[in-house]
Amino acid sequence: MALMAWETHVKRMNSLLGKLSDVQLEHEVAPGRNTGVYLLGHLTAVNDYMLPLFGLGERLYPELETIFITNPDKSGLDKPSAAELRSYWSNVTNTLNEHFSKMTADDWFARHTSVSEADFAKEPHRNKLNVLLNRTNHQAYHWGQMAFLDKKATD
Amino acid sequence: MALMAWETHVKRMNSLLGKLSDVQLEHEVAPGRNTGVYLLGHLTAVNDYMLPLFGLGERLYPELETIFITNPDKSGLDKPSAAELRSYWSNVTNTLNEHFSKMTADDWFARHTSVSEADFAKEPHRNKLNVLLNRTNHQAYHWGQMAFLDKKATD
Repeated sequence: MALMAWETHVKRMNSLLGKLSDVQLEHEVAPGRNTGVYLLGHLTAVNDYMLPLFGLGERLYPELETIFITNPDKSGLDKPSAAELRSYWSNVTNTLNEHFSKMTADDWFARHTSVSEADFAKEPHRNKLNVLLNRTNHQAYHWGQMAFLDKKATD
Repeated sequence: MALMAWETHVKRMNSLLGKLSDVQLEHEVAPGRNTGVYLLGHLTAVNDYMLPLFGLGERLYPELETIFITNPDKSGLDKPSAAELRSYWSNVTNTLNEHFSKMTADDWFARHTSVSEADFAKEPHRNKLNVLLNRTNHQAYHWGQMAFLDKKATD
């Protein structure tokens, strides 16, 4: 069910991205707030981090961390273009979904790599499924903001 | 874990509501978009609906449905004040949390009242836990928008 919720939110974001032009993505989602490009980079970087966190491999785009996580929008750092970020977003979500489709229930309830075995024994909820729940909510939070770039949407 | 995610998001919303004045809540979250008051009423009404959906009793504020679910913001319908909505929000979340604290794992995996026994046999994921996951994401979506009312927040 958590995986279904994740997949639903990836699909909703893909649908929103399909409606927005690159120019629209470069706009601020609200006056003085983050641009669509920044939020797309931010979500891509945060999702990419699930690969090492779940022991599935290295991040695909580690260079995004400085631009989109450590630093705020309008940091003056060069950003990839909207077109590049769309492709990074697709690669990250497709790679994750490929791994996720092979994971068993036991895999999901296993610890993620940023919690030690000793801490996990005390706090067994610090597992991969919990990270996925949090990432899905994180995505919903920013998706609600990016939806403002779609002038026709009212929600 | 899903319950922890729900509780975390209720706390985050309460924290945001604590920072916002009633006047701020009456503002649009972005130009031409919903007001904070509308979104607070909308979330309260949607969450309130979990009571009958989970077989826990009648909704506390059924009158909110027409104003905040069936109709959009600026419908011309009279709305409760920001102060009233804060109190409704608290009552609904406190009532839900009281019920949730008594629910067992079996309760969460049981069907909700809008799915028939026959359909549930075919689609066992249509249970209460799944509704809670969706409600938490729904809340995160609008919380991301309401965060724009807090002028100091940058996220």
